[in-house]
Amino acid sequence: MGPGPINADPRVLRAMSAPLLGQYDPAMTAYMTETQELYRQVFRTANDATLLVDGTSRSGIEAVLVSLLEPGDRVLVPVFGRFGHLLKEIAERCLAEVHVIEAEWGTVFEPEQLEAAIVEVRPKVLALVQGDTSTTMCQPLADVGEICRRHGVLFYSDVTASLGGNAFEMDGWGLDAATAGLQKCLAGPSGSAPTSLSDAAVEVIRSRKHVEAGIRESSDDLDEEATIRPRIRSNYFDLGMILDYWGPRRLNHHTEASSMLYGARECARLLVNEGMGTAIERHRLHGAAILAGVQGLGLEVFGDVAHKMNNVVAVEIPAGLDGDGARSAMLHDFGIEIGTSFGPLHGRVWRIGTMGYNARHDAVLGTLAALEQVLRGGGLSPVPGGGVAAAKEVYAG
Amino acid sequence: MGPGPINADPRVLRAMSAPLLGQYDPAMTAYMTETQELYRQVFRTANDATLLVDGTSRSGIEAVLVSLLEPGDRVLVPVFGRFGHLLKEIAERCLAEVHVIEAEWGTVFEPEQLEAAIVEVRPKVLALVQGDTSTTMCQPLADVGEICRRHGVLFYSDVTASLGGNAFEMDGWGLDAATAGLQKCLAGPSGSAPTSLSDAAVEVIRSRKHVEAGIRESSDDLDEEATIRPRIRSNYFDLGMILDYWGPRRLNHHTEASSMLYGARECARLLVNEGMGTAIERHRLHGAAILAGVQGLGLEVFGDVAHKMNNVVAVEIPAGLDGDGARSAMLHDFGIEIGTSFGPLHGRVWRIGTMGYNARHDAVLGTLAALEQVLRGGGLSPVPGGGVAAAKEVYAG
Repeated sequence: MGPGPINADPRVLRAMSAPLLGQYDPAMTAYMTETQELYRQVFRTANDATLLVDGTSRSGIEAVLVSLLEPGDRVLVPVFGRFGHLLKEIAERCLAEVHVIEAEWGTVFEPEQLEAAIVEVRPKVLALVQGDTSTTMCQPLADVGEICRRHGVLFYSDVTASLGGNAFEMDGWGLDAATAGLQKCLAGPSGSAPTSLSDAAVEVIRSRKHVEAGIRESSDDLDEEATIRPRIRSNYFDLGMILDYWGPRRLNHHTEASSMLYGARECARLLVNEGMGTAIERHRLHGAAILAGVQGLGLEVFGDVAHKMNNVVAVEIPAGLDGDGARSAMLHDFGIEIGTSFGPLHGRVWRIGTMGYNARHDAVLGTLAALEQVLRGGGLSPVPGGGVAAAKEVYAG
Repeated sequence: MGPGPINADPRVLRAMSAPLLGQYDPAMTAYMTETQELYRQVFRTANDATLLVDGTSRSGIEAVLVSLLEPGDRVLVPVFGRFGHLLKEIAERCLAEVHVIEAEWGTVFEPEQLEAAIVEVRPKVLALVQGDTSTTMCQPLADVGEICRRHGVLFYSDVTASLGGNAFEMDGWGLDAATAGLQKCLAGPSGSAPTSLSDAAVEVIRSRKHVEAGIRESSDDLDEEATIRPRIRSNYFDLGMILDYWGPRRLNHHTEASSMLYGARECARLLVNEGMGTAIERHRLHGAAILAGVQGLGLEVFGDVAHKMNNVVAVEIPAGLDGDGARSAMLHDFGIEIGTSFGPLHGRVWRIGTMGYNARHDAVLGTLAALEQVLRGGGLSPVPGGGVAAAKEVYAG
């Protein structure tokens, strides 16, 4: 019940044990095409350029940033938690000119603040986390795409922690790039990064086109670096080459991680079958129940609850209690993992997730029952049954 | 029966469906530590810095090259096939000064050629593929480490296609870095890149140390970029950070791809249990059998057979036969995939692999029986039973 990775849905793990296929076997390429279509539904987009990057969620982040940003390009990174720092750090390594604005941990940005910074910086790319698990905050994005379009800025969001559990509308909100991971609301293991790109983003990437010498087939594939744009400074994360691999040419790049592909496909299939709206409502419900539950145990919640992600809550560790000892007791006595956080919140809060396969009635009530015992074991006096009762009230509507 | 990816061992797929654990769960970190120890045995090394990069095999290549090479560093890349071109391409993207020597496809380099080039180029790093599946050649490495040491050169080899099926001695042969993948002789799926680094390689990487702003814990973790060496130009592939994640500090970097870790661990466990020598001998035996078999069918083999990898053979497509049609017939009529190759060999050869779970008696004989039928269906007149009989003779010793 931590902030992710979480228990994978058993159906996802079962899908991953399917026999492997050769990467150009028609059944394999059909799986790839199906997976793209499923992720279009998950991201709520018509983007043809929807695919998986073979790596953990930060591989998708780096692929987008290194493919879009040339050295010296300006990028604006609004930071409201640890993962904003990560976007900044990755953009710096792309040698972009990185401009940061910061919101206090536990809060989010107003659209006006973002627009003012865009006007000042005039970036090529706005790189903005949607849900930052370090603070549990969910940045509203609905109005940001329109601002970006007005100012000619490409809009990228890292939705790893939020996708599937909180509203997200890639096309409706005007995003140009989004990347995710499987290990949060998608109920799978880390190791695959679903990624979607708008036509505008693809155009930028295509202008940096490059085909490996070892597999060039025609003069069209010659290295055009000298005549067009600086080559993307990574082979593994060159989204132009990855698009050629996923596209009709099936031009060899990496060897697709087949088992991860099967897993990613099953994660999306389960969500799409459930219905994206239903899945988000499920996360909202169980998130509300755990929130009421920890409050019912007399605990304080960190941050602006109005902007909390549905799928994780940060609980202030009560004064005088050994927070790490309590986490150990949860794990060792009850087999339930909860997290702490990073940087300024390390040791100050616990983070409890209700996401993916763990966004379940029994998981929520079991966690609250265990937490009550652990608090009591730590010398506190939580209201007996107060957590479970409050959660049940939420479930009763 | 292609050149990889190949059918995974069912035990590997089963291991991958184990439930996920939190990344700092003591059971999870114990699995990580166990996996490191197993890969030390696979690589035949005592290197403490032995770990997995979370991505396909080329993620390991890029991690090593971008972590070792600073812009302007000289690197020597001897190219004898497609994957040499890949090393060159990745090193170029690191902005290294890349020097290439080429051997005709189907041949390998003599140690003297390598030494002469080293003397001329004086590179920081020699980056050399061991087994290049595009040509099936296996570059002898046993004498290369000593040459590198004599000239103060770091010696890196990409052993993706060869490890586990051909002799490899990381320490005995004096390598500083080696990277692999699971989808060849290791009998697993693509998606994890076992990597090992000598102390000398680690020292170079540590001199470029950097800790992310979001997780700095002390002034020791401050960004030392300005005072030491240029920062590694990738976050995902920063082996210094990946070492801190796998090392005792367990400093958060990515979220470990748990299912791939379970798979990678099982791949290594199976090989170590079999014994590395026994596994290599198994690949030698089945490689000899398929080679004799295709020759027994009257087919010509591409390249210098004395330097062929144990685990793959390149067969010249007979004149007048539709090579892709024959591959389709193998797949559709017999459920057996064989490959073609890249660049100059595309459409000129078939590549048949006998590696990992497919380095088996029944797989070899079944492939030869099917191939005989397909050749006959294509209008050729192979010796009836000639392939299977020749392979059986090899098995009979």
